[in-house]
Amino acid sequence: MDPIWGFPFTLPAHGSRELLRALHGQLRTAILDGRLQPGLRLPATRELATALGVSRNTVVAAYDLLLSEGYAVARRGAGNYVADTLIRGRAQPVIDDDSKMQHRLAVYWRHVPAPPEGQVPTGAFRYDFSVGVPDHSQFPFEVWRRLSARALRALSKAMPAYGPAEGRPALREAIARHVSFARAVACRADDVIVTTGAQQAFDLLARVLVTPGRTTVAVEDPGYPPVRAAFAAAGARVVGVPVDEEGLMVDRLPADARVIYVTPSHQFPLGMVLSPRRRAALLEFARTQHALVIEDDYDGEFRYGGRSLDALQTLDRAGSVSTGSVCYVGTFSKCLFPALRLGYAVPPPWLQPALTAAKQLGDWHGDVLAQDTLAAFITEGHLVRHVRRMRNVYAERRQALLDALARHAGDRLLPIPSNAGLHLAARLAAPVSAQALQALAMAVGIRPEALDGYAAGKSDINGLAFGFGMIEAGRIEEAVLGLTRLLDDRLSPLTQR
Amino acid sequence: MDPIWGFPFTLPAHGSRELLRALHGQLRTAILDGRLQPGLRLPATRELATALGVSRNTVVAAYDLLLSEGYAVARRGAGNYVADTLIRGRAQPVIDDDSKMQHRLAVYWRHVPAPPEGQVPTGAFRYDFSVGVPDHSQFPFEVWRRLSARALRALSKAMPAYGPAEGRPALREAIARHVSFARAVACRADDVIVTTGAQQAFDLLARVLVTPGRTTVAVEDPGYPPVRAAFAAAGARVVGVPVDEEGLMVDRLPADARVIYVTPSHQFPLGMVLSPRRRAALLEFARTQHALVIEDDYDGEFRYGGRSLDALQTLDRAGSVSTGSVCYVGTFSKCLFPALRLGYAVPPPWLQPALTAAKQLGDWHGDVLAQDTLAAFITEGHLVRHVRRMRNVYAERRQALLDALARHAGDRLLPIPSNAGLHLAARLAAPVSAQALQALAMAVGIRPEALDGYAAGKSDINGLAFGFGMIEAGRIEEAVLGLTRLLDDRLSPLTQR
Repeated sequence: MDPIWGFPFTLPAHGSRELLRALHGQLRTAILDGRLQPGLRLPATRELATALGVSRNTVVAAYDLLLSEGYAVARRGAGNYVADTLIRGRAQPVIDDDSKMQHRLAVYWRHVPAPPEGQVPTGAFRYDFSVGVPDHSQFPFEVWRRLSARALRALSKAMPAYGPAEGRPALREAIARHVSFARAVACRADDVIVTTGAQQAFDLLARVLVTPGRTTVAVEDPGYPPVRAAFAAAGARVVGVPVDEEGLMVDRLPADARVIYVTPSHQFPLGMVLSPRRRAALLEFARTQHALVIEDDYDGEFRYGGRSLDALQTLDRAGSVSTGSVCYVGTFSKCLFPALRLGYAVPPPWLQPALTAAKQLGDWHGDVLAQDTLAAFITEGHLVRHVRRMRNVYAERRQALLDALARHAGDRLLPIPSNAGLHLAARLAAPVSAQALQALAMAVGIRPEALDGYAAGKSDINGLAFGFGMIEAGRIEEAVLGLTRLLDDRLSPLTQR
Repeated sequence: MDPIWGFPFTLPAHGSRELLRALHGQLRTAILDGRLQPGLRLPATRELATALGVSRNTVVAAYDLLLSEGYAVARRGAGNYVADTLIRGRAQPVIDDDSKMQHRLAVYWRHVPAPPEGQVPTGAFRYDFSVGVPDHSQFPFEVWRRLSARALRALSKAMPAYGPAEGRPALREAIARHVSFARAVACRADDVIVTTGAQQAFDLLARVLVTPGRTTVAVEDPGYPPVRAAFAAAGARVVGVPVDEEGLMVDRLPADARVIYVTPSHQFPLGMVLSPRRRAALLEFARTQHALVIEDDYDGEFRYGGRSLDALQTLDRAGSVSTGSVCYVGTFSKCLFPALRLGYAVPPPWLQPALTAAKQLGDWHGDVLAQDTLAAFITEGHLVRHVRRMRNVYAERRQALLDALARHAGDRLLPIPSNAGLHLAARLAAPVSAQALQALAMAVGIRPEALDGYAAGKSDINGLAFGFGMIEAGRIEEAVLGLTRLLDDRLSPLTQR
């Protein structure tokens, strides 16, 4: 937000203690990873307080912590500086004669997560529309606990030394039946590779498919940033391709795209479904250009009316001979909860051995107890029951959101048509930037997400995304009302001018 | 074992049903990944049965399965062939115009694990000396179940959407205290990155440190194959460096080594401790050559007498200013059990942000329930208690092994001095290859591990490793006796000549 040193601070809206922890944590990380260079003079406390809009006491306290930890040194009468000697020992790569290795470090430095104390926790806002977070308040934890205890008892009698890299057989079987039935994805247990969340599936695909500096990967723009980051870190040339009301604009794909990442059931973050003719065109492109399509079906379980379209993977296999152009990726992060870290890939057979080897070299295999518990959870019907229950919950919230937007936001926030998932996007049809509106809203305890954060580069959709995993149906209208009031306040001087 | 198609079969020694599953699974994998080309005529059943030393019925049954699944086709009167049309669709990479991408796939194809049905399960032998597998029969599963249930209850009330990539704070704190105390490793909670087993720590290090085609990584020879594989897959030039009785021969390190992987507490697989002067020399090399040392302390908790040497990481930090030349890697696979998949890295501060980012891009973070359970398990003293109990158990087995070798193997199997860990290596001082002896032994239900499998290229130590995680003390003498009888039988015709 503030370019005072050319890097942004993400500070929570409320609470001086949280503010202090966030500011201190972000300063320290910046010192450790070298964004704040040794010997740099820190801004005067008053100057930084004004720039960030926080109290001077908060900045003084953050500096005191840095001084006591040795990350900063005070020079009498000359202010505070990033520590010099300490930093040389601590923060500089010892490997400094290999510019290429420095480059590899730099690749990852670009993606260093904010320290825990600098992250705004979900649920910190009165009206939280965080995207991608399901509601776990109705998750049957008691059932999970029982199945987990049972799985552990079985494991205590027959614990494998190491499990198979592809995942536990019972879970692969359960997932294959589940996706065959729920998503009409053609697959057998042998086709499934269990991963640590969908993110690991994308990362393994990046490692197996990308030749650094040579492979072009096409992604939707706007789209899902962690996938872009994983492919970029693997050395891919990542190209954003625009989406319209039919989803990915297939005719805008670069001819040399060898990997194409799409969210056909529910475009992330805009929400449209990839149309049947685009699906056909995309598969045709993949066949003729010898490209692989990664189909990310992250929240397709939650559909609200409308005809269900076949998965791309299903379409690809429908011909007399499959061309093996689609790798389907699913996750239990949305239909159960993200902290479970379980996802899966259904790669075409030519890709499976290499992907399995990458998984084995990457971490051998994932947590066995969680896999066995999930296998029982699916097999005994709890997944289907939970999804059915939550679909009703989310459908009610989605309707409340649509109603409130129609009633209060009129022609200023226009929902983008969508019939699935845990969030809804809306175009901001007013001369106000979504980021500015989000900042104003967060200051009064309402957190929508500006779409800007999902742009891969060229997209310039001015709008907000509203996740409905964290907010109850009965509170949605208040939130939308609050938001439209802010919008009107902001607009009124403009209209008066 | 049989070069009939230029690739080896690994078939279990006993049980026709296991044989069938293994043979079928390996044939299918070979067809899927293209080692058996479409259109290839399969050998006649009688021919293959003879070559593999199995019954013809087993081969007929394996072929029947392949035919029923469509992986093979029968041509009337002309035998069985690898299916043609199916395979073109199924097994050939669709991405076939990019030789470099083929190369990436080929990198991973080299490491495709044997299918589950083709793997010899640990515990399948009467006398199982498998290396690297701890005894979990005395693991307090009931305690684990209780702590897991408690952690799940706490999570059900305050489930984070996503956890921090570095790991749950309580677990990082518990690990920092544990390694500070048990291994004298200088570290705070903030220094710890929790990983999915030690393998993920090695893999993340490979991604962050290796520039494909440019970075030289030195490993011990013989050494730990999965680490070599992870670095090779990341594009490193992996160079084996010999070990002698003092461990890694530091003066044989290639000058351009930028990453050096060592097992200083208990060389894997030979067992010696890296001597104090070699430790000093290694750190000096790292400092002057700007290299990073990866210290893999996989089973250092289990020490049997002798002075404990400081960890390399501790030595490195002992100077007035740390040079940040060592990344310590630990695991709970040996002191608890491998299927738990929990390990950790303690990188120098300059490396930590990039490593954390690589973890975040790789899988975001690991299983939260397992992390919280382990945190409580450590904090409440169960880890220390379990390690203490198992140290006595393993010490007894180790002594039984040493006694039996001294009594029965005389001057033919000479234990390599070692004072830690879950296995012991012995030189085979006889004109018999360790691999031949292992094969003979497995046929009568005894499974030692020939050291050949750990060679990085140049090492030519003829010997066996004996893990004692799977075998009770009271059965060790019988096993050694059986092994020495085989050895004597094998040697006697030689001596008569």
